Amino acid sequence: MKLTILGCYAATPRTFTNPTSQVVEFNNSMYLIDCGEGTQVQLRRNKIKFSRINQIFISHLHGDHFYGLIGLISSFGLLGRQNDLHIYGPKGIKEAMLLQLKLSNSYTQYKLYFHELTSKSSELIFEDNKVQVYTIPLNHRIYTNGYLFVEKITQKKLNIQRLEELDIHVVYYNKIKNGEDHTLEDGTVISNEELTYPPKKPFRYAYCSDTMYEESIIPIIKEADVLYHESTFLEHDKPKTEYTKHSTAKEAATIAKLSDVKKLILGHYSTRYPDISVFEEEAKTVFDKVLLADDGKIFEF
Amino acid sequence: MKLTILGCYAATPRTFTNPTSQVVEFNNSMYLIDCGEGTQVQLRRNKIKFSRINQIFISHLHGDHFYGLIGLISSFGLLGRQNDLHIYGPKGIKEAMLLQLKLSNSYTQYKLYFHELTSKSSELIFEDNKVQVYTIPLNHRIYTNGYLFVEKITQKKLNIQRLEELDIHVVYYNKIKNGEDHTLEDGTVISNEELTYPPKKPFRYAYCSDTMYEESIIPIIKEADVLYHESTFLEHDKPKTEYTKHSTAKEAATIAKLSDVKKLILGHYSTRYPDISVFEEEAKTVFDKVLLADDGKIFEF
Repeated sequence: MKLTILGCYAATPRTFTNPTSQVVEFNNSMYLIDCGEGTQVQLRRNKIKFSRINQIFISHLHGDHFYGLIGLISSFGLLGRQNDLHIYGPKGIKEAMLLQLKLSNSYTQYKLYFHELTSKSSELIFEDNKVQVYTIPLNHRIYTNGYLFVEKITQKKLNIQRLEELDIHVVYYNKIKNGEDHTLEDGTVISNEELTYPPKKPFRYAYCSDTMYEESIIPIIKEADVLYHESTFLEHDKPKTEYTKHSTAKEAATIAKLSDVKKLILGHYSTRYPDISVFEEEAKTVFDKVLLADDGKIFEF
Repeated sequence: MKLTILGCYAATPRTFTNPTSQVVEFNNSMYLIDCGEGTQVQLRRNKIKFSRINQIFISHLHGDHFYGLIGLISSFGLLGRQNDLHIYGPKGIKEAMLLQLKLSNSYTQYKLYFHELTSKSSELIFEDNKVQVYTIPLNHRIYTNGYLFVEKITQKKLNIQRLEELDIHVVYYNKIKNGEDHTLEDGTVISNEELTYPPKKPFRYAYCSDTMYEESIIPIIKEADVLYHESTFLEHDKPKTEYTKHSTAKEAATIAKLSDVKKLILGHYSTRYPDISVFEEEAKTVFDKVLLADDGKIFEF
């Protein structure tokens, strides 16, 4: 799994910081999460081909998470896109996009599908041959979902030693990976269980932004390989989290610890702090495996 | 008059080129024209204080001229703006902005006024103590207006030689500039005409983008000091101007020549041409005083 941070700062775009957007990649398939103003330029800067984005997941309808969406939809059209585009996000997103396309009298020549979300429980909203995507209901000022990406593993792992002992030709390996039993030349049937190990545990990536400290998400993100959790503030600004419904770095780390995730990535930093290393410091007082997101940073797991 | 080009390239924002936006300044008052995606970042880069923008004039509702507006409105709010903001643009702009503010449940604490335009004739739409702004109806794929800024000159120019001959104290100069007659100590009344010259001709700046070649604008922009006219294409791509309703550099220069303007600034370049100097070359075959806009460029007249 590869994660490219296009932007990870709170609120308004600035000269050197971008609002939220990131590209998640599983086995060569890319998915865009959130789309603040300037995302299309950030995609170009990070050399991500527009044609590789076919699904966009929007967490909520605050400007720093979706004001770049209409520009991206529009540029896709200008560049002659043919592939369908699927957009997942809160109810209202379709009306906002279609109104703006109508005003410019520039409908897209490609098919645009909106999947509007209203449920307050976690649900499976998308599935292809690489991943399943579930919502993570968050606690913010307006209706917000995080997204849990679960890698799909259909193939088993081969027991090479046993395959070689039985002198089974590599031409059969793919069928065996897919779960088939194997018949030897003498007619003996070897069960698939004897030739394979169970598939590795699927990789799970949980994206949680924006949200205040919310323990109800723990069962959903439990033992995720990577948790991206917003940390807009530090503890000494904790009163601000109450009316803004954001989290501190320490709170993000507490969620990571209680969820027993393998790694925590912090992001959605308020630009009031001159240096983001303070977020890492604070989080590490609670949870060890902390990474800092930053615009243009790429994580590979 | 000072003109700061925030962006002057056609269509989609790119890593090093920005869609249309510019700041016009008359005697220390600033006015924003058009607001493509990323305009708020371009304002920051060019060190223009957000609080100095109180009027925004949008030419038309294609994305490259207004997708940055909602972000700017929103950032003004986040930064605690108190001053009123006035937005002039085609009908529909209010609905698009208010819908997006409603979806984010984040109305502005400052007053936001929309002045929606529908007229197909030139009209005076704004006036303060520095300028008057008139629409310039353009010919594009959707309803579009250019804007003519006319400097307001209320004060006359002093005839210093005559004032000194009559030994009139400088303390009276301002009243005389404003048109008052002067009474000497012996009771003689000196008429204002004797003490002043007529005011200089007001500076006129005409912004015309986007539009195809359209001679009906000539009477409105006649003898302007500066004309900004779009030149999306070169003559060898002229067939494209027919369905896109844009202009070539030569057509922009022809309008400049027929209007007898003092200077022509070209902009809204298609990014298909690797070097913008070709626009200047082509325009100069028709009209001499050609300047090229470019992102971040400042013109002072």
